[in-house]
Amino acid sequence: MADNHIVSAFDQELNALKTKILRMGGIAEANVASAIQAIVRRDRALAERTISSDQRIDVFDSEISDLVTRLLALRQPMAVDLRFIVGAMKMATDLERIGDYAKNIAKRSTALGVAVPQQPMHAIPRMGELVLGMIKDVLDAISSEDAEKATAVRDRDPVLDELYNSVFRELLTYMMEDPRTITGCTHLLFIAKNLERIGDHATNMAETIYYIVRGQRMVSDRPKADVTAEMADPGHVA
Amino acid sequence: MADNHIVSAFDQELNALKTKILRMGGIAEANVASAIQAIVRRDRALAERTISSDQRIDVFDSEISDLVTRLLALRQPMAVDLRFIVGAMKMATDLERIGDYAKNIAKRSTALGVAVPQQPMHAIPRMGELVLGMIKDVLDAISSEDAEKATAVRDRDPVLDELYNSVFRELLTYMMEDPRTITGCTHLLFIAKNLERIGDHATNMAETIYYIVRGQRMVSDRPKADVTAEMADPGHVA
Repeated sequence: MADNHIVSAFDQELNALKTKILRMGGIAEANVASAIQAIVRRDRALAERTISSDQRIDVFDSEISDLVTRLLALRQPMAVDLRFIVGAMKMATDLERIGDYAKNIAKRSTALGVAVPQQPMHAIPRMGELVLGMIKDVLDAISSEDAEKATAVRDRDPVLDELYNSVFRELLTYMMEDPRTITGCTHLLFIAKNLERIGDHATNMAETIYYIVRGQRMVSDRPKADVTAEMADPGHVA
Repeated sequence: MADNHIVSAFDQELNALKTKILRMGGIAEANVASAIQAIVRRDRALAERTISSDQRIDVFDSEISDLVTRLLALRQPMAVDLRFIVGAMKMATDLERIGDYAKNIAKRSTALGVAVPQQPMHAIPRMGELVLGMIKDVLDAISSEDAEKATAVRDRDPVLDELYNSVFRELLTYMMEDPRTITGCTHLLFIAKNLERIGDHATNMAETIYYIVRGQRMVSDRPKADVTAEMADPGHVA
């Protein structure tokens, strides 16, 4: 009886931890969406709301860290429970980074300037859509503890990387054609890079939830398709 | 007696964990140093050695993750031991990211091109020196479990951010003055950003070691001085 009581309290704590991760994820997802909207619409008020909303993510990060430490100290979690508790802390770190990137994107909305070419401005929402789909699905995978869904999220990351590569190339070309766009395009470059990094963190989370559910790491190295670091002048590669 | 034996085996495991973190940190530090050298000297062979050396960091990351999970499952760590074990996993994540940034910097060495202005090329090694000092000192702080040293590392981060701001501004100016430098300067922008991020991860580690030693979080919000996201055209801000 006493034992049952303890087990059930532990289950409640595990559920509370899961709920916190999902709520933190929900805010991160919303902030990424509104950061992109702030960029597309040059909406300063929305950018400011997105920036200040990041504090809520940081509060969740601290709360999750404290809850994890308490669970490890007071319970003796084993097997899947232990993997979940340790994994929750990792996922909170990923979500905290996603929140930071959303905040950084929002900050750039006011600095973009007027001289920004239209074409890459279309590519940013397209990258955003992909990234938001990955975040949504990885949160679903956490909620339903679904390793297959997690694998599908990881497999979408190369598509995002490809899109980033083409945006990178395109932005360099624009800057060369019209140096007045340099500042705006530089901010767009960092925005695109931030979105690509958000995809990496969603992928990290997918790998974590896979490990929690299956007890082994995802097979094969993560496909990695961001090749911009090796790109020379776009004239030479286009 | 049996108890003593268990405690001592546990201490050995904790030491093994600390050694792994310090060795992983040593490789990360060396890779950052050689990535910067590869950039400054345009040394392709050094860049390639740096890139392939990153695999060793990833192996340490997996080993530390496994060791942490085993320690949490088999021992019942409490207080400072528990904080250290959980903190070790966080620090391994930071070191893994530092390694990735070093690898990314090394990759850019071949794409830099010849048309790169001299001035920011001086700023990169200066940022590198600062960053390497922070990594070295945070590893010392881990080794000696020194919270004061950790605080000193955190306090140096704004200097790095200031340097990044001025490099960012300078690079935009160069690109506008001579559009032939756009590709090279874009890579330098990302290199500078990577160095600034490495400083953030060294700061994360400093906060983690502080928390391990003191059992409470570092006071006051982290000073944050990267303001480039809000920077409009350099002409307007210079």
